[in-house]
Amino acid sequence: MTKAPQGLGGEQVEGRRAVLELLRAGKRRARTVYMSSAMSRDGTVDEIVERAAKALRVVPPERIEQLARTDVHQGVIAMAPALRAADLDDLLAADGAFLVALDGVTDPRNLGAVMRSAETAGATGVVIPRHRSAHVTPAVTKTAAGAIEYLPIAVVGGIPAALERAARAGCWSVGLDEAGDRSLFDLDLADQPIVLVLGAEGRGLARLTRERCDVLVRIPMHGHVASLNVAAAATLACHEVARRRDR
Amino acid sequence: MTKAPQGLGGEQVEGRRAVLELLRAGKRRARTVYMSSAMSRDGTVDEIVERAAKALRVVPPERIEQLARTDVHQGVIAMAPALRAADLDDLLAADGAFLVALDGVTDPRNLGAVMRSAETAGATGVVIPRHRSAHVTPAVTKTAAGAIEYLPIAVVGGIPAALERAARAGCWSVGLDEAGDRSLFDLDLADQPIVLVLGAEGRGLARLTRERCDVLVRIPMHGHVASLNVAAAATLACHEVARRRDR
Repeated sequence: MTKAPQGLGGEQVEGRRAVLELLRAGKRRARTVYMSSAMSRDGTVDEIVERAAKALRVVPPERIEQLARTDVHQGVIAMAPALRAADLDDLLAADGAFLVALDGVTDPRNLGAVMRSAETAGATGVVIPRHRSAHVTPAVTKTAAGAIEYLPIAVVGGIPAALERAARAGCWSVGLDEAGDRSLFDLDLADQPIVLVLGAEGRGLARLTRERCDVLVRIPMHGHVASLNVAAAATLACHEVARRRDR
Repeated sequence: MTKAPQGLGGEQVEGRRAVLELLRAGKRRARTVYMSSAMSRDGTVDEIVERAAKALRVVPPERIEQLARTDVHQGVIAMAPALRAADLDDLLAADGAFLVALDGVTDPRNLGAVMRSAETAGATGVVIPRHRSAHVTPAVTKTAAGAIEYLPIAVVGGIPAALERAARAGCWSVGLDEAGDRSLFDLDLADQPIVLVLGAEGRGLARLTRERCDVLVRIPMHGHVASLNVAAAATLACHEVARRRDR
């Protein structure tokens, strides 16, 4: 895992969907959009070319390979200013706050996948700890498929303290835990301000984080495999909140 | 992507959870379980050592690196007989049939992630086409976290023809499609024999596959990012079927 030494990262965006959403969102100005000269055209590529305008540089495929920091760049890489971290208290105070806190998710593909699913469910922000977490590497930008352009990210010293601030702001902290005493599908406070809390791959929620949660919910399991991948769990939890808010 | 030239694959199983479930399930006899001598012990590792018994070979970490075909092997690799494909008609005839058909999912990590989520939701089988699909490579074994040991896989000539056989067997084919006219969360036939049908990354369902589905459902989207990853969509659909069957 490549960590951004300072700040949130996000300077190098790889993949067609991710670059297209960078340009569409327009919150960060793409300095350069590199596109392989060997690329096959489609609607997404055409829109990238149009939106990138003067920032576009068509280069030989070898140049893309040199620049790429993932193997899933799909022939397009954009360089942009780093993402700016959001302020946790602003996210907590927002109308209909719906945050996802990740306690020690270190796999960049998992972080990106969580962000993509959370954004599609209408989440209003993500909270990650400064240490023991993947930051927004090129692999995250690709897997998030553009979600990093829309979903604010707050970086905190630790998740337990962030959940204390959530409580003071009137937000419920709901932890996902295999030993939770309630089913995710019985979560009746989903329409209130909420922070969904997910733990690290393999280990789950840390003890202190678990203690700071107001409710612990489990995802009902029906097979032999004991647990879901963290991105799958986040997808279910986020879309369950969305489903309940929709009614 | 490394394709199994013949058969379903699954001979090389990588990762702690995946190897543990291979040994627990006991359906395929592990010939050799290679474990890195530099491995840190935990409950999972202890159980692998105990269950592997005479098949265990503790080897230097370099040997594991030579054998590994993924970078997420976690120091454990097992060799076992190839998986045997299941018969589609048997899967369709089973009580409470709950199948997942994947039409052209070529990314091994997506195939593995779909299998893991489907197994945890109580799915009774997976259907993949012989061509234009990832087979069970080491990357699939790792990401599936053991699900390949429990979830039968039928390999078919084409998904549209498989859905015709499903119809004759009295199973509903439910396609996931961004343009579906019904929400996934209004799927009231989930308690009947069912085949969930998911399309390729990026392109979605092929035309002929879409035409063979009895119902097309969409996942309600609440953000800017236009689509979910195929594994995320499968997770939501499978666990929605499980949620309805639970009631």
